[in-house]
Amino acid sequence: MKTIYADNAATTKMSKTALEAMMPYFTEIYGNPSSLHTPGQEAAEALWQAREDIAACIGAEAREITFTSGGSEADNQAIISAARSGARKNKKHIISTAVEHHAVLHTLRRLEKEGFAVTLLDVQPDGSVTPEQVKAAIRPDTCLVTVMFANNEIGTVNPIREIGAVCREAKVLFHTDAVQAVGHLPINVGEMNIDMLSASAHKFHGPKGTGFLYAKRGVVLTNVIDGGAQERGKRAGTENIPAIMGMAAALKEACANMEENTAKMIAVRDRLIAGLSEIPKSVLNGSRDHRLPGNVNFCFEGIEGESILLLLDDKGVCASSGSACTSGSLDPSHVLLAIGRPHEIAHGSLRLSVDESVTLEDADYIINAVKQTVEYLRNMSPVWRDLISGKKEFTIKD
Amino acid sequence: MKTIYADNAATTKMSKTALEAMMPYFTEIYGNPSSLHTPGQEAAEALWQAREDIAACIGAEAREITFTSGGSEADNQAIISAARSGARKNKKHIISTAVEHHAVLHTLRRLEKEGFAVTLLDVQPDGSVTPEQVKAAIRPDTCLVTVMFANNEIGTVNPIREIGAVCREAKVLFHTDAVQAVGHLPINVGEMNIDMLSASAHKFHGPKGTGFLYAKRGVVLTNVIDGGAQERGKRAGTENIPAIMGMAAALKEACANMEENTAKMIAVRDRLIAGLSEIPKSVLNGSRDHRLPGNVNFCFEGIEGESILLLLDDKGVCASSGSACTSGSLDPSHVLLAIGRPHEIAHGSLRLSVDESVTLEDADYIINAVKQTVEYLRNMSPVWRDLISGKKEFTIKD
Repeated sequence: MKTIYADNAATTKMSKTALEAMMPYFTEIYGNPSSLHTPGQEAAEALWQAREDIAACIGAEAREITFTSGGSEADNQAIISAARSGARKNKKHIISTAVEHHAVLHTLRRLEKEGFAVTLLDVQPDGSVTPEQVKAAIRPDTCLVTVMFANNEIGTVNPIREIGAVCREAKVLFHTDAVQAVGHLPINVGEMNIDMLSASAHKFHGPKGTGFLYAKRGVVLTNVIDGGAQERGKRAGTENIPAIMGMAAALKEACANMEENTAKMIAVRDRLIAGLSEIPKSVLNGSRDHRLPGNVNFCFEGIEGESILLLLDDKGVCASSGSACTSGSLDPSHVLLAIGRPHEIAHGSLRLSVDESVTLEDADYIINAVKQTVEYLRNMSPVWRDLISGKKEFTIKD
Repeated sequence: MKTIYADNAATTKMSKTALEAMMPYFTEIYGNPSSLHTPGQEAAEALWQAREDIAACIGAEAREITFTSGGSEADNQAIISAARSGARKNKKHIISTAVEHHAVLHTLRRLEKEGFAVTLLDVQPDGSVTPEQVKAAIRPDTCLVTVMFANNEIGTVNPIREIGAVCREAKVLFHTDAVQAVGHLPINVGEMNIDMLSASAHKFHGPKGTGFLYAKRGVVLTNVIDGGAQERGKRAGTENIPAIMGMAAALKEACANMEENTAKMIAVRDRLIAGLSEIPKSVLNGSRDHRLPGNVNFCFEGIEGESILLLLDDKGVCASSGSACTSGSLDPSHVLLAIGRPHEIAHGSLRLSVDESVTLEDADYIINAVKQTVEYLRNMSPVWRDLISGKKEFTIKD
């Protein structure tokens, strides 16, 4: 049986280019870049080249890139850094949104316990926040606005440039969790008024276990991990050179092929959206227009998330209900609740996230598999029986 | 020219076994272990197996292992966890030593700023601390004792079991930074009375960018990285499966071959110590008896650390002056100062750290290279001229 991997928002398969870029650093060039001898200095030079390559992909300078163990660490460090700088000026208010990744939300919760005030903006029905909302929420004591570039569950892309402009005008630091966007959407931190940006390599066909934090020159970083003097003293621990080399190669590749890949992915995405929309009592989650090229997210009335995933897996379709990071949790997605989906249908969500290797033929296979699965599950579902008999009211209107 | 890598305390070359264990997880089994579909569940099963394998190597249970991005993160998390638990009981005193790694010392410094009291024990001339010292320092408000297993610069191995017994008796948490010891010395956390232990894969021929924190069942961990529910909610971020698989394979291999490798390394180490001791006005740093099998550390009067390293590199010998994490710093090693070396000679230290691939022949080559280099540098050194002319007094007595 064919396997179609449609869970690229959870993690991607590493590209050959990335793996090839890593291999020499696993075998021959294994030095510690802090060491003065030749193997160490070879590693140090490679590290700097990777930093320059990554910076160039987002319009930054090499010295503005701090390597981390991934997107979560970068989010933690960005927010904590802004909070510590803010506290020194007695500014202890942070603005974010209700649909952020938990790496952001849980860090904010921790800061709330420390006495910070956090405003979580409600989102529009499509999952976005507007620059006007951000502007209206800024207070004299606001030290940070953190708004995700694109949502990991429903794929909605925010008006980052405009939100950045609002923040710059108000002289408030602006961080964006761009874990789902880097390598997938064109990003220029200067033009987009971004002060800090988080990224994770394994979301763009790079290796797991590495990511980076962009912090505009002048932004003071606080350590999340204290110790040695690596990363200009801002992130301790021997640098993960092979992974960083893989990340740089993957990002260069993704950026070089972005136009072509995006076109392919949008065609597949739109085919999937059209096909799944044919299912009665189904609804697309997220924006139709401002959407990640590879993201499809639907709710189906009368379906439980987990069962649809297991049955699709049996048919060779790898999908998810939402964020992988919270799977196993029985709570419905905070993102679906925030865009106004009631509990009943928020439980029945399906996220398909494709990369450029998924074809239109694959899309047709997926559509067929989902249609069959939804029908099968509904036939067994007492809830569905109540709905079609009129005992209960449909949540999704046609 | 032959290259002899004698900087294994900074980082090791990854073993073939480790790389082979990683490869399938870069290519075929690339799922996110939090995903419910088959590729995700394959990754989750592998992750659990790695956890069991690693736990078995140190006499722990799988559920007591938390994967981190490396030793520094594990040190940070252990100390912060104990501090937070302590603070809840109004216990805000921590005991450590003057010769810890900066991942420990800088985390303690941060806690001091938050109002914790930290006692840094002075060390014995050989760099060790005694259980009696620890016992004498414990106060009613002590929440943590953190003492390194083996020193990364001078190789001194502490009486961990006895220190652990003192802590257990006093009902104080005991953490050990075992980054230099895991895979090199036999460790059983139960027998050694260890509550928390930090390790880093790239110090035992595993990959960079991964490590683990052992925390005895019942020890409450605090997140260093907040976000998703990975690692039982105690360490957010998609698990670095390939690296974790490499770490497990490397640790199993290291433990299986420990006896044989240790014998080889001790023979080479002792040859190096004997050979370098012949150099006039040289002194071995660290313990002669309780010493890591691969560690050699000398001070030579009248020599600057950096120049000796560059000249040895020209002869194909990769060595260091001390911790790689602080290289570039002009300050002399805090470890050498703590064992009583004066500033003048603490600057002239040389650390050779060998693995099992370094032969007795290599050792002879290194001895010869160091002898030539020391002589060459002394001939150019005005300090040495003053010393031999009697204008200045020797620090190292014969």
